Amino acid sequence: MSDPTRVVVAGASGYAGALAAELVDRHPRLELAYATSRSEAGERLRDLYPRYRCEIELTELDLGEIEDVEAGIVSYPHAAAAPVVAAMRGLGLSVVDLSADFRLVDAAIYERWYGPHGEPELLENAVYGLTELDRERVRTAGLVANPGCYPTAALLALAPLAERGLIASVVVDAKSGVSGAGRDGGERLSLVNLTENFMPYAVDGHRHLPEIEQELLRLAASAPRPGASRSAPDDVSVTFVPHLLPLDQGLLTSCYVELTEPVEDLEGLFRERYEGEPFVSVIDSPPGLRDVRDTNDCRIHASGGGERAVVFAAIDNLWKGAAGQAIQNLNLMLGLEETEGLR
Amino acid sequence: MSDPTRVVVAGASGYAGALAAELVDRHPRLELAYATSRSEAGERLRDLYPRYRCEIELTELDLGEIEDVEAGIVSYPHAAAAPVVAAMRGLGLSVVDLSADFRLVDAAIYERWYGPHGEPELLENAVYGLTELDRERVRTAGLVANPGCYPTAALLALAPLAERGLIASVVVDAKSGVSGAGRDGGERLSLVNLTENFMPYAVDGHRHLPEIEQELLRLAASAPRPGASRSAPDDVSVTFVPHLLPLDQGLLTSCYVELTEPVEDLEGLFRERYEGEPFVSVIDSPPGLRDVRDTNDCRIHASGGGERAVVFAAIDNLWKGAAGQAIQNLNLMLGLEETEGLR
Amino acid sequence: MSDPTRVVVAGASGYAGALAAELVDRHPRLELAYATSRSEAGERLRDLYPRYRCEIELTELDLGEIEDVEAGIVSYPHAAAAPVVAAMRGLGLSVVDLSADFRLVDAAIYERWYGPHGEPELLENAVYGLTELDRERVRTAGLVANPGCYPTAALLALAPLAERGLIASVVVDAKSGVSGAGRDGGERLSLVNLTENFMPYAVDGHRHLPEIEQELLRLAASAPRPGASRSAPDDVSVTFVPHLLPLDQGLLTSCYVELTEPVEDLEGLFRERYEGEPFVSVIDSPPGLRDVRDTNDCRIHASGGGERAVVFAAIDNLWKGAAGQAIQNLNLMLGLEETEGLR
Amino acid sequence: MSDPTRVVVAGASGYAGALAAELVDRHPRLELAYATSRSEAGERLRDLYPRYRCEIELTELDLGEIEDVEAGIVSYPHAAAAPVVAAMRGLGLSVVDLSADFRLVDAAIYERWYGPHGEPELLENAVYGLTELDRERVRTAGLVANPGCYPTAALLALAPLAERGLIASVVVDAKSGVSGAGRDGGERLSLVNLTENFMPYAVDGHRHLPEIEQELLRLAASAPRPGASRSAPDDVSVTFVPHLLPLDQGLLTSCYVELTEPVEDLEGLFRERYEGEPFVSVIDSPPGLRDVRDTNDCRIHASGGGERAVVFAAIDNLWKGAAGQAIQNLNLMLGLEETEGLR
Repeated sequence: MSDPTRVVVAGASGYAGALAAELVDRHPRLELAYATSRSEAGERLRDLYPRYRCEIELTELDLGEIEDVEAGIVSYPHAAAAPVVAAMRGLGLSVVDLSADFRLVDAAIYERWYGPHGEPELLENAVYGLTELDRERVRTAGLVANPGCYPTAALLALAPLAERGLIASVVVDAKSGVSGAGRDGGERLSLVNLTENFMPYAVDGHRHLPEIEQELLRLAASAPRPGASRSAPDDVSVTFVPHLLPLDQGLLTSCYVELTEPVEDLEGLFRERYEGEPFVSVIDSPPGLRDVRDTNDCRIHASGGGERAVVFAAIDNLWKGAAGQAIQNLNLMLGLEETEGLR
Repeated sequence: MSDPTRVVVAGASGYAGALAAELVDRHPRLELAYATSRSEAGERLRDLYPRYRCEIELTELDLGEIEDVEAGIVSYPHAAAAPVVAAMRGLGLSVVDLSADFRLVDAAIYERWYGPHGEPELLENAVYGLTELDRERVRTAGLVANPGCYPTAALLALAPLAERGLIASVVVDAKSGVSGAGRDGGERLSLVNLTENFMPYAVDGHRHLPEIEQELLRLAASAPRPGASRSAPDDVSVTFVPHLLPLDQGLLTSCYVELTEPVEDLEGLFRERYEGEPFVSVIDSPPGLRDVRDTNDCRIHASGGGERAVVFAAIDNLWKGAAGQAIQNLNLMLGLEETEGLR
Repeated sequence: MSDPTRVVVAGASGYAGALAAELVDRHPRLELAYATSRSEAGERLRDLYPRYRCEIELTELDLGEIEDVEAGIVSYPHAAAAPVVAAMRGLGLSVVDLSADFRLVDAAIYERWYGPHGEPELLENAVYGLTELDRERVRTAGLVANPGCYPTAALLALAPLAERGLIASVVVDAKSGVSGAGRDGGERLSLVNLTENFMPYAVDGHRHLPEIEQELLRLAASAPRPGASRSAPDDVSVTFVPHLLPLDQGLLTSCYVELTEPVEDLEGLFRERYEGEPFVSVIDSPPGLRDVRDTNDCRIHASGGGERAVVFAAIDNLWKGAAGQAIQNLNLMLGLEETEGLR
Repeated sequence: MSDPTRVVVAGASGYAGALAAELVDRHPRLELAYATSRSEAGERLRDLYPRYRCEIELTELDLGEIEDVEAGIVSYPHAAAAPVVAAMRGLGLSVVDLSADFRLVDAAIYERWYGPHGEPELLENAVYGLTELDRERVRTAGLVANPGCYPTAALLALAPLAERGLIASVVVDAKSGVSGAGRDGGERLSLVNLTENFMPYAVDGHRHLPEIEQELLRLAASAPRPGASRSAPDDVSVTFVPHLLPLDQGLLTSCYVELTEPVEDLEGLFRERYEGEPFVSVIDSPPGLRDVRDTNDCRIHASGGGERAVVFAAIDNLWKGAAGQAIQNLNLMLGLEETEGLR
């Protein structure tokens, strides 16, 4: 068997980056060459996260010094990620970026939600890495923009309908565990504030909305359109509201779809679409978050009748919603088995 | 000051009944004459619920023996409540029924969801006691059907729109703490199953749906209809999905409304509707469940634009969603101050 | 009835100070004249803590400006409290200090655990305010040092034994909810770190240890000593280890006592000692934290046999362990009913 | 590589039995031949526990029908386990019993805590399977009595001291997650009762106490005794009090030891004792329960000075405290690598 591929994880002190480092470290075909952190350099990953096994010492990122590294996972805040990604690409690394920097195809939309984009010229070569929806493009990509946690669950719940042009409008009521808000939330994310609590937030617009809209439109554009007169939609009505659950890991989207036409066998449509998928399963009762905790799985349940569909998708926001999907994508980019290191 | 009114609470070992007994016991103008329970007769309420102060000993219900009692609160399972309510009414008691038995005006609809109705002749005199929406009818009622917890939050969130005929369709995505499921859920409601968990349930139809539909239709029927050609709606499109939160008390409804016409000042409309209400407040940011815990308050936040409104309502399911609202209704029925005993 | 006494709460943005302000605000005989905060000046208390009702706007403390104020509650960090307390005393206010600054009689011991003491001359007039153990001294005090949360529970559990010279040695295994750690704990106190977690901390010495030792010695010194040869103990063996519970409010001490002689009727001894106490109850089964949540109560259970006693005491760390006991003490200092405003 | 060993797990619907079945199913060298359950026969394990992967259908136990099975894990209630264990032994199976039936060497002590013993003649061949303390006897045993969860943590914390005769007396203050109480606790174990709660229980004597005493005495008996005059102790003073944590999995014992003589390098003594152990690590700060969740690890921290030692041990009660240790023992009994299937 050939040597393992050496990987650098940049930004390994946050929740997603740390899990990415841990998953690389456990991976039979990857080697964690470097795990970097500005704020926690000198700390061992395991001391920062005692439930992880990875003993690597975090170091400051120095791309001039890295040796024999073929791939990078970047887990930086948005805007900060772009230049690091660009530098890694310049060194020829295959890169999975966990930030929002390369998810939105349109730099103008990016700017509206996040501010100016630092590396707009890289946008056109970035592949939006919701693996199950674009597996072939991920395989050949040099740069994969790893989807946000909410879009991952929402799009897996909606893709089977969107790909057939069936979505007239959709309400996505989403609920996430607290780790989705990152490590630096301070008192707002303290147990004292959140235990026995639950609340909506960002009700006037969350940054994951344009990502969901972009991909739903793209899927709708690919839908078969029988009559010549029917053109691809240029808009999709999405209402998206996130809520904060009093738990650590887990994310559920409840998607209420107004269909363009009745679907006879809704569950069958979903089962067919995801048949053979290693990480997506369509089940006959609503999923619970505990069922997918600490896994890269997405469990989907679809119900409804007539022109209404209700679709639930449950994931672990740190796994399929972030670091797990990053490994899944990296496996494909490196020609490895897609599920390697994720069971 | 006159003597306090003596009250019997029938079914005081369950969560809602026990809180009703505790609230009667603390109430300055009520006296808890009897608190009854088949399964826990002989136990003191405080031993069953150590955080309550009420020291009454639970007894078996014997309506032939009760003395000088003017009012009853019934907290029995559906179907079991109706005959007890009928007997109390026969004795001339003012009754608040926490079960579903007198909520649905149409016995046929009741039967579809709950089975045959035992006392259909009482239905026409029962008043649906969502206090803020029908205060005057509650004042003069002999029998008040206390609303379900989900309908209470959903209807308070939707009434200002429904009363003006503004609701074309609505999705109610509801989330409740575990006490809403009652005391006898067994292993399904164990901490082991529910901690760090979250899930939808009853996705193919929950018993609170017909209650929400009935009241929305009734509110819509009362809406002003300018043109002669426009008749009252005979249907309303409601999608209602409850979810189970890993916490004890608290219930949030997120209501996604498609409006019949754009509303210019949504928040203003809500503020005006609930101005002066002692237990309903319209706030300018989304409510959290901790903010209403152990109170009879409902906090509402409305946002949206164009023909879409999103309205959130938070209550404590055991208080405003059950026992608290029962006291609020009983206060009105007995000519007391509406807020008495609830602060 | 005379006018309410005007009170200033200094440091009202932290958990204990905010609850103290809320309790003053709800109190029928007190008026919240000022609630101060450096970091949150300009905010309304209710916006900071939405579950509180107090609408006062937090202001910067300016003792030169306060008018007609008779009492102060100080909730500052240790060392920062002493000068504010001194200034309030200079203005003639009755002061309850929630910090550690005036709890330790011996300035040298204070210095060992907290650093130099800023106002050592005030120490001798400060009364250690564990109300049930020193009610008469509290009544006449101008400055009450409100006990720490752990010492409150530990000493209430141990006093009946200590006062009779019965404690040879004791292990205090203590467990507290997260609010005991204050509001500024950052990521360490995040829900992500603490949910489904539990751990000991400060195992090599916690600042509440000298407080427990000091008071146990004082209680032992007061014990009757029959024989002339037996002198008061000058040392007491206390092992104290705190643990962090994954919950908000609540504190339990499990005290394992090696007795100097067998006690025949342990429960009787405790019942006799606390008979008539409004906030301390001796119960015949182990207390749970939910039973005392949001109350000023302490529930105690004692078991054991021969020369071993095991005593459990449960309190709400923010109430009896901080702000509730502060009101209890202030009531006594101002000649009010001890329980006023605390039910 | 040889065929995997076929294993039957009897009683696979409870928490410990289900995890044992799941671990056998995932094990590279074992094959789950049968998983049995009276109450849930016909259900698939994965439907009962959606977070497990094992798809086996639970069946009724019929030892007359099982084929080619070499080993059994029994997870029955005490008293019910003994006859099943006896029958399996009669068929020549290697058996790990998770019940208490074969843990106590002395049938009279067993009877005092559990009632009459059904198979006393098997007691003398049963090996108490706290792997790290008796590895060699486990290797050659036909029947291993898997230790209780509390004794596992307590004994791992105390063994290094007990083996040297250093324990004069010990207080074990233990805290366990709710899964330790089993699946059939009903309303007492509901989330509503336990969230934000914490309490001691079984304070007058828990069944795990005689198990801890028995093994501490056995360890002490093996301690080197320099002088001829010093005989093995025939008693050990153990105070053991369990508490119920508001979380699912995890168990911490805080052990307060009065030593027979001062120990110079306490941490060194522990490090030396557990050096090379795959599942026990001695760490330099107190362990948290999250650090060992879903692992077979035990993390120990020892501190103290003079004649007092405080030792903390954290395990996952379902893993090292039950099913994980069962696999660890079975691995040894079958001549497999001890850690196989447990990483």
